Amino acid sequence: MTAAEASTGPAPGRPRDREIDRRILAAATRLFGRVGWSGFTFEAVAREAGVGKPSLYLRWQTKEQLLSAALAAGIADIRDIDTGELRGDLRELGRQLSVLRLGPERRAVERMGLEAREIPGVAERWDHLRESQVHAARAMVHRAIDRGELPARTSVTLFLDTFIGAITMHATSTPERLKPEVAAKIDTYVEDLIGFLLGALTAQS
Amino acid sequence: MTAAEASTGPAPGRPRDREIDRRILAAATRLFGRVGWSGFTFEAVAREAGVGKPSLYLRWQTKEQLLSAALAAGIADIRDIDTGELRGDLRELGRQLSVLRLGPERRAVERMGLEAREIPGVAERWDHLRESQVHAARAMVHRAIDRGELPARTSVTLFLDTFIGAITMHATSTPERLKPEVAAKIDTYVEDLIGFLLGALTAQS
Repeated sequence: MTAAEASTGPAPGRPRDREIDRRILAAATRLFGRVGWSGFTFEAVAREAGVGKPSLYLRWQTKEQLLSAALAAGIADIRDIDTGELRGDLRELGRQLSVLRLGPERRAVERMGLEAREIPGVAERWDHLRESQVHAARAMVHRAIDRGELPARTSVTLFLDTFIGAITMHATSTPERLKPEVAAKIDTYVEDLIGFLLGALTAQS
Repeated sequence: MTAAEASTGPAPGRPRDREIDRRILAAATRLFGRVGWSGFTFEAVAREAGVGKPSLYLRWQTKEQLLSAALAAGIADIRDIDTGELRGDLRELGRQLSVLRLGPERRAVERMGLEAREIPGVAERWDHLRESQVHAARAMVHRAIDRGELPARTSVTLFLDTFIGAITMHATSTPERLKPEVAAKIDTYVEDLIGFLLGALTAQS
């Protein structure tokens, strides 16, 4: 416990508890990314977080619940994106995708794609999260078509596959040692990609 | 040993050995996709392939060598693609990428992306393979620019990130139960994607 935590004490909103929650969930994400489900135990998460096991048992009953909570905390919800215009929406979506693939959660996200289906109670949450993200992204493109920013005959599937696929490919194909450099320049990449796709689509109309 | 194998006997070219090689390498790929490096042992590969351990030791000295051989055998080399025109090249590249992401090697490929860096002697071969594939794909687009099939100012990086990224995204985001259906329609998807990107790029010029 840090001095700041010790001096806070129990209070409405319990900031000390929230800080411990946050620390445990970040440790759970890190550990899962490194060792996967086969090495994911309450004991290992407690050690990674530097807290006692009782702190974990107080909060979560099963390791499936703990991992689900860690994922929910670590992954931004793209349903919240709605800037009122397509370029703004794509910039924000691109930023969130880059964080997911280049940020501290990247290995957990990659591993989840591979292992989710084998983890009972997590597979369903992961599928649900993916589906709601896809649904939100499709709604974003449909709004742009309704506003006349994209031609009516734009293929929503191809537009999103190319946009999301390019950012994912760009980030995951970067060797580990170059990721910080790519992350620093990602805004420029996303801007160029938006120009490439939108310039192309509107020229066709 | 099957009756066919038993009747073949040792002969020039040793077809019986090649069949056993093929069976072991396919089993190694399947096993690695399922359990990853932590469960990848000579014993487990021998069991998966239905051969004795000596058959493996005769051929490979270390499990790193065995896994490298399995990858080399399972992954098509895109350096061989050169149909003389961009659409033909993209069709073939798209087909190879789809097989990689929807075919029997898909889980091994996904897992390799995640675990390669932790496997000594495999990380380097995997990086080398990836780099030579990227190099070959870039050369393909440059040839198209030289032939005047694409505008000279086409961004090779964005073109390939969108093309390769879209196919990868389309294949990997499909739930397991729908993969056969998506695989059956992949040629149409690749054709639509080529039309989407080329139609767009040439309209701009």
